[in-house]
Amino acid sequence: MPPRTRYDTISEIAKRRGFFWPSFEIYGGMSGYVTYGDLGTKLKRSIEALWKEYFVRKQGFLELDDPIINPERVFEASGHLENFKEYSAECTQCGRSFRADHLVEEKTGMENVEAMGGEAIKHLMLEHRIRCPNCGGELKEPVLFLPMFKTEIGATGGEVGYARPETAQAMFLNYKRGYQHAREKLPFAVAQSSKVMRNEISPRRGAIRVREFTIMELELFFDPQDPGCPWFREVENVVIKLSTEEMEAKEVKELLETSIGEAVEDGLILTEWQGYFMGVSQRFITALGMPPEKQRFRAHLPDERAHYSAQTYDHEVLFETWGWIEISGCAYRTDFDLRNHMEASGVDMTVLREDGTRYVPHVVEPSYGLDRLFLSVLEATYERKQKRNILHLPRELAPYQVAVFPLVTKDGLPEKAREVHDLLLDKGFWVVYDEAGSIGRRYARADEIGVPLAVAVDYDTLKNDVLTIRDRDTWKQVSLSLAELPGVLEAYFKGEKDFLDLGTLVIRG
Amino acid sequence: MPPRTRYDTISEIAKRRGFFWPSFEIYGGMSGYVTYGDLGTKLKRSIEALWKEYFVRKQGFLELDDPIINPERVFEASGHLENFKEYSAECTQCGRSFRADHLVEEKTGMENVEAMGGEAIKHLMLEHRIRCPNCGGELKEPVLFLPMFKTEIGATGGEVGYARPETAQAMFLNYKRGYQHAREKLPFAVAQSSKVMRNEISPRRGAIRVREFTIMELELFFDPQDPGCPWFREVENVVIKLSTEEMEAKEVKELLETSIGEAVEDGLILTEWQGYFMGVSQRFITALGMPPEKQRFRAHLPDERAHYSAQTYDHEVLFETWGWIEISGCAYRTDFDLRNHMEASGVDMTVLREDGTRYVPHVVEPSYGLDRLFLSVLEATYERKQKRNILHLPRELAPYQVAVFPLVTKDGLPEKAREVHDLLLDKGFWVVYDEAGSIGRRYARADEIGVPLAVAVDYDTLKNDVLTIRDRDTWKQVSLSLAELPGVLEAYFKGEKDFLDLGTLVIRG
Repeated sequence: MPPRTRYDTISEIAKRRGFFWPSFEIYGGMSGYVTYGDLGTKLKRSIEALWKEYFVRKQGFLELDDPIINPERVFEASGHLENFKEYSAECTQCGRSFRADHLVEEKTGMENVEAMGGEAIKHLMLEHRIRCPNCGGELKEPVLFLPMFKTEIGATGGEVGYARPETAQAMFLNYKRGYQHAREKLPFAVAQSSKVMRNEISPRRGAIRVREFTIMELELFFDPQDPGCPWFREVENVVIKLSTEEMEAKEVKELLETSIGEAVEDGLILTEWQGYFMGVSQRFITALGMPPEKQRFRAHLPDERAHYSAQTYDHEVLFETWGWIEISGCAYRTDFDLRNHMEASGVDMTVLREDGTRYVPHVVEPSYGLDRLFLSVLEATYERKQKRNILHLPRELAPYQVAVFPLVTKDGLPEKAREVHDLLLDKGFWVVYDEAGSIGRRYARADEIGVPLAVAVDYDTLKNDVLTIRDRDTWKQVSLSLAELPGVLEAYFKGEKDFLDLGTLVIRG
Repeated sequence: MPPRTRYDTISEIAKRRGFFWPSFEIYGGMSGYVTYGDLGTKLKRSIEALWKEYFVRKQGFLELDDPIINPERVFEASGHLENFKEYSAECTQCGRSFRADHLVEEKTGMENVEAMGGEAIKHLMLEHRIRCPNCGGELKEPVLFLPMFKTEIGATGGEVGYARPETAQAMFLNYKRGYQHAREKLPFAVAQSSKVMRNEISPRRGAIRVREFTIMELELFFDPQDPGCPWFREVENVVIKLSTEEMEAKEVKELLETSIGEAVEDGLILTEWQGYFMGVSQRFITALGMPPEKQRFRAHLPDERAHYSAQTYDHEVLFETWGWIEISGCAYRTDFDLRNHMEASGVDMTVLREDGTRYVPHVVEPSYGLDRLFLSVLEATYERKQKRNILHLPRELAPYQVAVFPLVTKDGLPEKAREVHDLLLDKGFWVVYDEAGSIGRRYARADEIGVPLAVAVDYDTLKNDVLTIRDRDTWKQVSLSLAELPGVLEAYFKGEKDFLDLGTLVIRG
């Protein structure tokens, strides 16, 4: 049996407590699908809300929600039908298919084999005598496969449609509406958080590569002759770790530590907008609990880049189990997409400059996989301490904010604790009530799902309305009066107060 | 040209300002798909958040997020492959297909023709000589069509999958996990807000019937021998308007006005849980802006009910353009679904009672179409007043909470207004800044998208930091100091203060 990884541990807790588990369990499962339970659904939603704080609300960017299934002509124009393909190798014995480049990577330890192209992949498969990982049978020669879900829209006489494998096309399809709603002024951006589907040939690595997931991204439209970002100064001093295109080409292993400002000035990052979003990105990922030293930005080599991109930096975070994993990409898509849709649709999407010239807007796109961010949060915040599991979730992400416990289940304490619970519910908090087992076990249960604060109701509460609050991270306790509780919690969750400012520190004999 | 309906008016504003519009416009559109713009995406999200307040947070119910595409065996077990079908009639000339029962309804004015069955529909089509509404051609005899999107999961050797047409199956598939996370205690509920897809044969009525939409629903699991709802008393005095199964059968036009308590006692509503959710439902819909007099609950007749239901009440609201429209259904699904999945999967889902007997939990399900709620909000809150469009959105739903305007664009007023704007952004509000055109036009633009409050920065602000706030609904203004502004707005949006309590009423000469 392989050693138990950090991911195994987190998965076990996730399944047992209700963060996530494999879908369709009662029917034997189906790889590439993940189900989010109560805690997972809430955590994902909190991450999304925080993303909006960093990327939408303050900038006044527009939002969008466009259908998942799109008619075929959309993906003809976008280039997906031609370019969004992968090499699939089918087993001659069991009939199962596998992603050929992944098979080569697993066998050889090579990286980014996809970028080498079909002939190289075929050659490597022969060279390394790669066989079916399922049954050991012989594999057919790899063929190109379009990993998009195909369907038909309408009854007879309907149209072919596909589930979108990314959300960006929506912003291009609706570009003219966005332009109108932005009062015909550039720069503006349109953001979307929504589901996409990729018909992965052979999904692996648990929840890291799934067939349905949520992308949160925005398309920033700007005039290439006026490429400045008004908020660039907010991030120019942010220090990031970079592997540039040149470093990738030369296989330099060490990372370049640089400020965003310098990287843009030196031409390592092509535009201020990319620099801006990369700076915000590092702050955002840090706010999710992942420290900057476990983050890096890695440039795509030309043959690795998507067909639409002039420069792409992946934002990667370090997982103990898998190493560096891409959680975001920041791409400079130029005018590729709007130009294609203009040509295919015949609709003019150019913008008139004051000097009378016309241009097709350029696009910078920061894009996040919400599901991977979710895993990053668990990876970053899980700790094993004194034989207990603790999830140090940032307070603004916690699915439940407060736990309420009666010290014991007699003498009216449960009733009083219920009152406290109901009061906090009325004030708008997400609250759990727990009276099962010893109070130590209840603290442990709350720690494991990342509840930041636990309020205990004891005999003092009955006597004089004094409660204690316990901190998940330090296990320290403070006491305060019931009347103060709602206001104090509100200040805490707004980030206006630290734990030790919530009451009087309790010193236990 | 047909007269301009209220829906036409709302659609025009929605498209122009960015609530919603038909999808894939630049490629000629595709019926049954709607795109939500900035305002629409935000408004939908606010409605969802309010739904969670009414149906999830306070009750401590669990949440779930399960994949859209499910393998075929799920829909075999659920009965969808057999039962979820509609009659489709294809035109012999233009090849387009149409929902046969809808064609009959449009031609005859009859209602609920689907429930009459295939033979009756065929007969009615002949009797009324119904022809193709597109080209006037002859129609083929209607055939059963499964309005679900079909696809294949995986490359070669993959499995057939369908996009789910409802979300409920997810709660049944994951029932055992829910039971575990609810600490193996009934009653408990699992709620989900997520996308579903229905491959409608011939979508009509704009955004009312679309092929992709969001369902917000929950499945409440309970012991049929212990069917009481602990919160029933909170709703028993809520008065609702009911059309019972008996009234429907006898085609009684008048509605029965009754309290929820009486309706359950008289057996008109089968279980306390249905009664509870129907009471909460009326409060929820009222909070969205739709007054109780435009709401009713209508029972399904046995032949109209879904295959799983013992009793269903549709919650309907009155649209000026379409009449009564279903926005929700509250179904008593009994143990139908769990029993089917138990049989198909071989997984035991029974629960042990204290007396040693075992049972399959029963289910009550309140279910909402978010997209229709969205339309209901626009319908309920749109007003034409003094040649202006006003959207009286409830303050907790407004996409933007505050607009900030400089009185004029000179003398440093825009700079001061920008400061106010940035301050409110920092405090977490959704804010729009506008300095284009006269202040009257700016108020009108804000009213049209339902911004509850507009803050004007004028010469008094420069002199002594005094601002005015204008109320969207009454057009009244109050003045207050800049220092008070954030706290006062926070109280207003928490519902703790009314507009006139925010400052000193401004009396204009």
